[in-house]
Amino acid sequence: MVNKKALVLFSGGLDSTTMLAMVKSDGYEITALTINYNQRHVSEIEFSKKSLSQLQINKQIIFDLDLSKIGGSALTDDIPVPIDSNDNIPTTYVPARNTIFLSLASSFAERLNISDIFIGANIIDYSGYPDCRPEFIKSFEKTINLGTKLGVEGSHFRIHTPLIKMTKAEIIKKGHSLGVDYSLTLSCYNPTDSGLACGKCDSCKFRKDGFKDAGLPDPTKYK
Amino acid sequence: MVNKKALVLFSGGLDSTTMLAMVKSDGYEITALTINYNQRHVSEIEFSKKSLSQLQINKQIIFDLDLSKIGGSALTDDIPVPIDSNDNIPTTYVPARNTIFLSLASSFAERLNISDIFIGANIIDYSGYPDCRPEFIKSFEKTINLGTKLGVEGSHFRIHTPLIKMTKAEIIKKGHSLGVDYSLTLSCYNPTDSGLACGKCDSCKFRKDGFKDAGLPDPTKYK
Repeated sequence: MVNKKALVLFSGGLDSTTMLAMVKSDGYEITALTINYNQRHVSEIEFSKKSLSQLQINKQIIFDLDLSKIGGSALTDDIPVPIDSNDNIPTTYVPARNTIFLSLASSFAERLNISDIFIGANIIDYSGYPDCRPEFIKSFEKTINLGTKLGVEGSHFRIHTPLIKMTKAEIIKKGHSLGVDYSLTLSCYNPTDSGLACGKCDSCKFRKDGFKDAGLPDPTKYK
Repeated sequence: MVNKKALVLFSGGLDSTTMLAMVKSDGYEITALTINYNQRHVSEIEFSKKSLSQLQINKQIIFDLDLSKIGGSALTDDIPVPIDSNDNIPTTYVPARNTIFLSLASSFAERLNISDIFIGANIIDYSGYPDCRPEFIKSFEKTINLGTKLGVEGSHFRIHTPLIKMTKAEIIKKGHSLGVDYSLTLSCYNPTDSGLACGKCDSCKFRKDGFKDAGLPDPTKYK
């Protein structure tokens, strides 16, 4: 049996927690990489630990990267989180975030000799984020294989995006079938300090609708 | 007159200081981005401030990113710095470093509405670093234009590598002609706390030979 290893970018949100369960059920030995980027919803990091424990995954790297020093986003700055966003690219867009996250993931993966990297990018609900599109992911994969020792010396990084074309309802149904406890995940962009969801931001709405469309009870604790 | 703006990755070493002088002489308004990655030769950050002052550039962002948590390199770990390295890829290679640096530079640049990014990558002296090669840079440029708001909405990031095919001697002659004071730059991978160069590491050797080949006096302070 091949010992498959995966580096999984894991925020503690609904999407990446589902992905984690999918990658685990595919038989990978997982290292979860959680980036503390000084986000508004930093309590998702506490949630992430609970889900890892529930899924019996014991390798987590929490890496500090203070993107609030760059700013320019409602997720890291004192800009209101949008409600009913109609923008093509919402104010919750963080400049070049997935490029930065994938770069760090690749660096850790190279160090740990892991060539399979997973990111929960999704183009259905958040079509406005340029760095969630398949063409971006594909181009990043090519770039990192040109720019690393692991890529150049023959192994090949693969950037996996298993959720990229799934709807929120499909993601929830998948996670449910794999035993994910969604009460341990946080999606809200603007939660209370104790981790209660606002129920109003774009992310809360997508989540609420997702449970409704999936025909499953929503275990989210709202304030 | 067009107000050209540039984001320049600037370490305080010989190469990036020369590049800074070149970009300035090309008429750009410069923001220098210096990344404190907990490198062994962290005193280069103090040097960087001196060169900026000498070149009359007053915008510098110093961003903390602790790559020693990733490790795997003689520049961030307790691995000896190589002397007379014969490896194809030396142990001073930092996993995915330039991908990470360019990602952060792109994020800052997007935030500041700057589309011209400069990095002092060079393939002549350090042909072993995969992330200094033109094909990597070109691929990164494509990726970041796919993965950012600035790239997608019509402006276009350009990643400039003016030094990429210059020899060390050519770089030194160029900088000399532009008035760079190389006594304010640090190249050594293993300097003393007060910033004296070891004179023995690969980087010191390339630098020494560069001054010799350029027929110019070497102002480096060795221990």
